[in-house]
Amino acid sequence: MTIHAEAPADRVTPTAVEDERVSLAVSTVIFALRPHPVTGEPTIWLPLVRRIREPHLGRWALPGGPLRPDEDLAASARHTLERTTGFAPRYLEQLYAFGRIDRSPDRVVSIVYWALVRAEEDAHGVVGDNVEWFVADEVPALAFDHNEIIEYALTRLRAKITYSPIAYRFLPEEFTLAQLREVYEAVLGRRLDPANFRRQALRHLEPTGRCLSGRNHRPPALYRFPAPASPSPLTFAKEESR
Amino acid sequence: MTIHAEAPADRVTPTAVEDERVSLAVSTVIFALRPHPVTGEPTIWLPLVRRIREPHLGRWALPGGPLRPDEDLAASARHTLERTTGFAPRYLEQLYAFGRIDRSPDRVVSIVYWALVRAEEDAHGVVGDNVEWFVADEVPALAFDHNEIIEYALTRLRAKITYSPIAYRFLPEEFTLAQLREVYEAVLGRRLDPANFRRQALRHLEPTGRCLSGRNHRPPALYRFPAPASPSPLTFAKEESR
Repeated sequence: MTIHAEAPADRVTPTAVEDERVSLAVSTVIFALRPHPVTGEPTIWLPLVRRIREPHLGRWALPGGPLRPDEDLAASARHTLERTTGFAPRYLEQLYAFGRIDRSPDRVVSIVYWALVRAEEDAHGVVGDNVEWFVADEVPALAFDHNEIIEYALTRLRAKITYSPIAYRFLPEEFTLAQLREVYEAVLGRRLDPANFRRQALRHLEPTGRCLSGRNHRPPALYRFPAPASPSPLTFAKEESR
Repeated sequence: MTIHAEAPADRVTPTAVEDERVSLAVSTVIFALRPHPVTGEPTIWLPLVRRIREPHLGRWALPGGPLRPDEDLAASARHTLERTTGFAPRYLEQLYAFGRIDRSPDRVVSIVYWALVRAEEDAHGVVGDNVEWFVADEVPALAFDHNEIIEYALTRLRAKITYSPIAYRFLPEEFTLAQLREVYEAVLGRRLDPANFRRQALRHLEPTGRCLSGRNHRPPALYRFPAPASPSPLTFAKEESR
């Protein structure tokens, strides 16, 4: 029997480490409220970018890009938002860092932010090339693990709206109860009983004393969310839109 | 007037991007329950590693290291845990990605995980060199932004224990009400009324039918947490200890 006296192979040689270095990207899931293209109901939409290089050439993907050395993470997300949609976020929060080994042929860890924007009715909101808006629940098969990332962001949005006043981020500063209820219905994907909703919502709203004019002989009252006295104890996720 | 027709300078030249590339690290905040060194009360502790190179040579820092190309993020955190403490986590969750430009002289983005370990009473729990355990509320000035990271992890722990059954991760499979109450008192940093606590806790516990033996003529009953029927709707943070 021959005994080979060899040093155990290093798992990774210095050259290999350099070649296999992990890259960092920042991606954004940007939610806006718009009428559904078929039903006209308020629906959650998001912008996607069509890839112009491999891998996944031609597939739609989340807006984003490599982290620049002169930008912190939230700034990178804002920059992507602005470049892709022309909007500044009404709400921005870090979602999660996705780092499975096989999520991309080159090793890329993606730190994902999610944002809420208020798409003005008269703005198409498309700024960049290869950018299109999709109904969030109706996206095609995307590049990388982006379908999974969107699902996770939707889960976060749907959970958060039940305990944190983020609904108003989709609305003007003053809004009617019907407009507020539409936001919850769009996010939760189901109808809510108007009387029940009214009863619960009024506990958290401030009447403005004004009404939405020009509608009918019973113009609906306008409300606002009172300024928060202190941050919600449960919202310990760092919000970065201030 | 001379007009210079120059192409706008690229913000970053290819060489500069290579030199200023962003590195990725995975750090861990590892919480264990142990008696306070002075008072003897159950307290939250965590392990720190003393730095052996610049910057911050000689300062204590969170255990961690660069992300290896062959490991995903949670595996990297587990590997650090094992290397530093010898323990496997009873609970592991991604906390946040810290990426301020100035947090480190070289641009390093740190993806931080927090973990709960059950430090066996007979195990000192120190495996690596330069590793020591500190009371979590009494750490010195650390390297980088690690004091801020620990504060954030403690905030997450203290919030989560109020709506999620993570307390049992610090305990044996069967435990007394007093042992459970000690966990809450250690995490929340205050005394809890035993009768009130008992009343609330019993709603969520399963009696085992056994008692803790060898104590006195009224041995305390042992309880366990029932196996969860479905994940808590609020625990949408991806738990990675399964």
